[in-house]
Amino acid sequence: MIKMILDCDTGHDDAIALMVAAKHPEIDLLGVTVVAGNQTLDKTLPNTLSVCQHLGIDVPVYGGMSLPLVRDQVVPADVHGKTGLDGPVFEPLVRKPERKHAVNFLIETIMKSDGDITIVPVGPLTNIAMAIRLYPKIVTKIQRIVMMGGAVGMGNWSPAAEFNIFADPEAAHIVFNSGVPIVMMGLDLTNTALADINIIERMEGIGNKAGKLFGDIMRFTLNSQSVVGLGAGPVHDVTAVTYLVAPEIYTTIDSYVEIDISHGPSYGRTVCDINNRWKKEPNATIGMAIDLPKFWDIVEDTLRRYE
Amino acid sequence: MIKMILDCDTGHDDAIALMVAAKHPEIDLLGVTVVAGNQTLDKTLPNTLSVCQHLGIDVPVYGGMSLPLVRDQVVPADVHGKTGLDGPVFEPLVRKPERKHAVNFLIETIMKSDGDITIVPVGPLTNIAMAIRLYPKIVTKIQRIVMMGGAVGMGNWSPAAEFNIFADPEAAHIVFNSGVPIVMMGLDLTNTALADINIIERMEGIGNKAGKLFGDIMRFTLNSQSVVGLGAGPVHDVTAVTYLVAPEIYTTIDSYVEIDISHGPSYGRTVCDINNRWKKEPNATIGMAIDLPKFWDIVEDTLRRYE
Amino acid sequence: MIKMILDCDTGHDDAIALMVAAKHPEIDLLGVTVVAGNQTLDKTLPNTLSVCQHLGIDVPVYGGMSLPLVRDQVVPADVHGKTGLDGPVFEPLVRKPERKHAVNFLIETIMKSDGDITIVPVGPLTNIAMAIRLYPKIVTKIQRIVMMGGAVGMGNWSPAAEFNIFADPEAAHIVFNSGVPIVMMGLDLTNTALADINIIERMEGIGNKAGKLFGDIMRFTLNSQSVVGLGAGPVHDVTAVTYLVAPEIYTTIDSYVEIDISHGPSYGRTVCDINNRWKKEPNATIGMAIDLPKFWDIVEDTLRRYE
Amino acid sequence: MIKMILDCDTGHDDAIALMVAAKHPEIDLLGVTVVAGNQTLDKTLPNTLSVCQHLGIDVPVYGGMSLPLVRDQVVPADVHGKTGLDGPVFEPLVRKPERKHAVNFLIETIMKSDGDITIVPVGPLTNIAMAIRLYPKIVTKIQRIVMMGGAVGMGNWSPAAEFNIFADPEAAHIVFNSGVPIVMMGLDLTNTALADINIIERMEGIGNKAGKLFGDIMRFTLNSQSVVGLGAGPVHDVTAVTYLVAPEIYTTIDSYVEIDISHGPSYGRTVCDINNRWKKEPNATIGMAIDLPKFWDIVEDTLRRYE
Repeated sequence: MIKMILDCDTGHDDAIALMVAAKHPEIDLLGVTVVAGNQTLDKTLPNTLSVCQHLGIDVPVYGGMSLPLVRDQVVPADVHGKTGLDGPVFEPLVRKPERKHAVNFLIETIMKSDGDITIVPVGPLTNIAMAIRLYPKIVTKIQRIVMMGGAVGMGNWSPAAEFNIFADPEAAHIVFNSGVPIVMMGLDLTNTALADINIIERMEGIGNKAGKLFGDIMRFTLNSQSVVGLGAGPVHDVTAVTYLVAPEIYTTIDSYVEIDISHGPSYGRTVCDINNRWKKEPNATIGMAIDLPKFWDIVEDTLRRYE
Repeated sequence: MIKMILDCDTGHDDAIALMVAAKHPEIDLLGVTVVAGNQTLDKTLPNTLSVCQHLGIDVPVYGGMSLPLVRDQVVPADVHGKTGLDGPVFEPLVRKPERKHAVNFLIETIMKSDGDITIVPVGPLTNIAMAIRLYPKIVTKIQRIVMMGGAVGMGNWSPAAEFNIFADPEAAHIVFNSGVPIVMMGLDLTNTALADINIIERMEGIGNKAGKLFGDIMRFTLNSQSVVGLGAGPVHDVTAVTYLVAPEIYTTIDSYVEIDISHGPSYGRTVCDINNRWKKEPNATIGMAIDLPKFWDIVEDTLRRYE
Repeated sequence: MIKMILDCDTGHDDAIALMVAAKHPEIDLLGVTVVAGNQTLDKTLPNTLSVCQHLGIDVPVYGGMSLPLVRDQVVPADVHGKTGLDGPVFEPLVRKPERKHAVNFLIETIMKSDGDITIVPVGPLTNIAMAIRLYPKIVTKIQRIVMMGGAVGMGNWSPAAEFNIFADPEAAHIVFNSGVPIVMMGLDLTNTALADINIIERMEGIGNKAGKLFGDIMRFTLNSQSVVGLGAGPVHDVTAVTYLVAPEIYTTIDSYVEIDISHGPSYGRTVCDINNRWKKEPNATIGMAIDLPKFWDIVEDTLRRYE
Repeated sequence: MIKMILDCDTGHDDAIALMVAAKHPEIDLLGVTVVAGNQTLDKTLPNTLSVCQHLGIDVPVYGGMSLPLVRDQVVPADVHGKTGLDGPVFEPLVRKPERKHAVNFLIETIMKSDGDITIVPVGPLTNIAMAIRLYPKIVTKIQRIVMMGGAVGMGNWSPAAEFNIFADPEAAHIVFNSGVPIVMMGLDLTNTALADINIIERMEGIGNKAGKLFGDIMRFTLNSQSVVGLGAGPVHDVTAVTYLVAPEIYTTIDSYVEIDISHGPSYGRTVCDINNRWKKEPNATIGMAIDLPKFWDIVEDTLRRYE
């Protein structure tokens, strides 16, 4: 079993990443920490709890950072809608978050561990950076960080920057300079993990609540994308979770990555030195391509495990 | 009684600030939080404990942040010596710090309070910034922050920046933009609070351990200063503590202060808009001058209270 | 006839761009202005003159800027060799540059024109930026600028920046904000314009001095490239010249381009907003692909015109 | 005779600097170059010509740079009024500027000289920086630059920056890094050179056109200052001119000065390392104080020389 903590800002693809992480037979999901990102924390936290309640996911959920470290907060309300997870309709929320702060949960869980926990952040890296700075000793006890964020090529928030990094560049700077082994699923890969109507109907065809929720979520994303002329929506965050159980379906490249924390037009860019111009040691393994049929098989197999 | 928490990076003048804060009859010192600054945390924390043990100061001491938020750490080993408090010789250290992290102590103490606590940071603002970010609700429950750091005029670390701010500009940026009322004792004032040989002998003349420690500390500072041709050493941090009990001896000016977090030659400068060029609301009250005879009287009176 | 001025930092591909510009039947090459770039000006100017002398190109050549506007000079001596045009061996240089400064030639020629001159810069944009600043009125009299430089994707000097822009980002900033219509041949396109051994032998097969020079130049480039495992060398600059006579063989996209003049890791990047995230008016037409067989036909046809 | 070129953006105090430079018996004013600054060039150039015409100053006047090198133009219309020289009323303008560009005049004059010319810039340093970049060889032939601009302490445009430097920081960066010996009259000194009503009446009492013009100019400045509660107006630029003939009345300090070309809140600051924190060689002599009675005597004596 691979021990992991999911750090998310639920969010559409976050919800699906959570669904996969919670039920995959090889993953032991120790907890879910929530951060502001796709929406403010007072929305991403209830969204996360709603998914857990709806699907009976019995994992502790911790509220974390509500603001980025240094920069002013940016919220992409036009991507994920007013709630941050527009589309599905949930029952009134009864599930409560744990009382402990996500950052303290991270620190305590990592420190008590045998150094065998993978952290999977799929939102801004604020929680992880805070834990690293608050308790630097965790650095050598985190097995690795497998994250969604950044891009070798074009960003999706600015031309230079992907949203998760743009939302808190200084946090990303701390994480990428921490010495923890990092696997980065950037837009170069995640933009290819597209759920079109066929994928959606395939998951809905499973016939359980999880398949139905996949459909409700991705039909919303599909509609937003169709506004801009695309017939499919990316499930970015899911690719970070599936990497844990099937790294062999990924094509990766090791590279030094520097986070742009200047305040110019490239603020928040993951400057990926894949051609080694700067002659620095790699600090990240970057996902460049993924075997999509196998990826969707993993997703489907996992969703089928829900009642 | 004025409830206060001292946040320090002991350090020569920090030690004296602690001596005054711990014994002044109008001050209720709730705890001491320690941060890296004048030296690394593994030195500033023992230094703080040594002062407490030596003088029988019975206040809980909490270890805090060992690294600045974003920037690389800088340590001014040539100012405060190898230990960070060269000069006095202390007994072997028995006193232990509390187990709780300084940042958590700050959050819990502030949240349990009636909003009547003043925080007095006299080192880099890392602990305070972390507490504000980790638990943003404390902002409205901190009565005010009375700090030592920054300068309207010249810096002392770079031509632009004073050391406490230079050591963690992003932390200062967070604090100055938090909305907490700030009183700032910058170099313009603190460089005038000089202990020359007359002041030193006056404090030593008290005849107790505290006066002796003042002498041991400031004779070291005096010697360092004499290397550069000065016959007196500043007690920067002390002016932040005495402000709590005698604000009437200070001349201040209200001003908007922006922290320079560019990475250029002015990195870490407190850009103080005392002529209101930018037409922004003041976020700080800046100490510009102090009635020195009255200041030294307060210091002497307080040190006399030690056995 | 298309009136053009070539602005170059000869350089291997510059030399070929010059050969094509000077003999293409539809191009009226009014003059060649030289700038520091691939090497210092005291090398790029003689290199340019040597090519002209060797092939009997009878066009006035003007020395221009020897230093970038603001930044420190960088010279890629390992790419173009010690002379900046290692490979071919030229006769002792007799040809002299004109006495007028390149910047003044640009200003005077543009101002005397009917607004029908295209400037083709294939090095750092220092000469062009200086002319624009020194005499802002030329802006509305330059028909357009068709340049080699920048990249939508990866840079070739740093991971973020292409060399010509990196060598003088502030100059590029001036040019891209000038209002002059810009066509930009960036690495996304120019890295595909590769001369392999077949292309080299085809040009050498022409049997004249120009074909021979093409071979001498590109065999040097080929050798440098083979060091890094490539079997072909790019002729970047040539694509800017051929665009004038055959725009129909180019696939382009209109975009807003902002030059990164922060001093961070993306300094010198052409941030190309090809997805219009920033909702700004395009200021450049960016070449993304080129019909290579037709491109090489143009090059061959033009070289054949040399005696 | 001290050979000098005045580079100005007339402007109130510029006009008086010009009056002094043109008539002082020890100064040989070779020419006046004009730059945008206190107003746009289409106003600063006529203002300069009007002063010359009005007082019969027979010196060639050259129009120069109308825009700063890199940054967007800022115009302090509220300081110098709509014309840039509000106050005095001049006859219709007949005097014409020379046809040559100021930058070319600077280059040619310096290159033809014996290395004995002092340039006195009292506006943004755009003309000087352009000349240095366009023709780097002039650097070793400029005797020195005696300029008005910058500040050790507070700025007057932003809290960090003085206007002349703020208006073109990159130009200042070029000049301060050029290697030319620099004498800098910053606000620390120039803000003390105040013309109150007594000084104004003293100059008017001379009874000639020059004294009258001094009064017309400084009464306007006096009125602007009285709005903000001051009873006197500074004649900043004049102190740079008088330094040439009476350096002994100045107190100066040699220092390394770095221009802040970050784009943060200190953009345009002259970071003056007067305490040598950075251990760099001085590149400027900074005026810190001036013997005011002697200064005003020089001004009066010179104005008396006008008919």
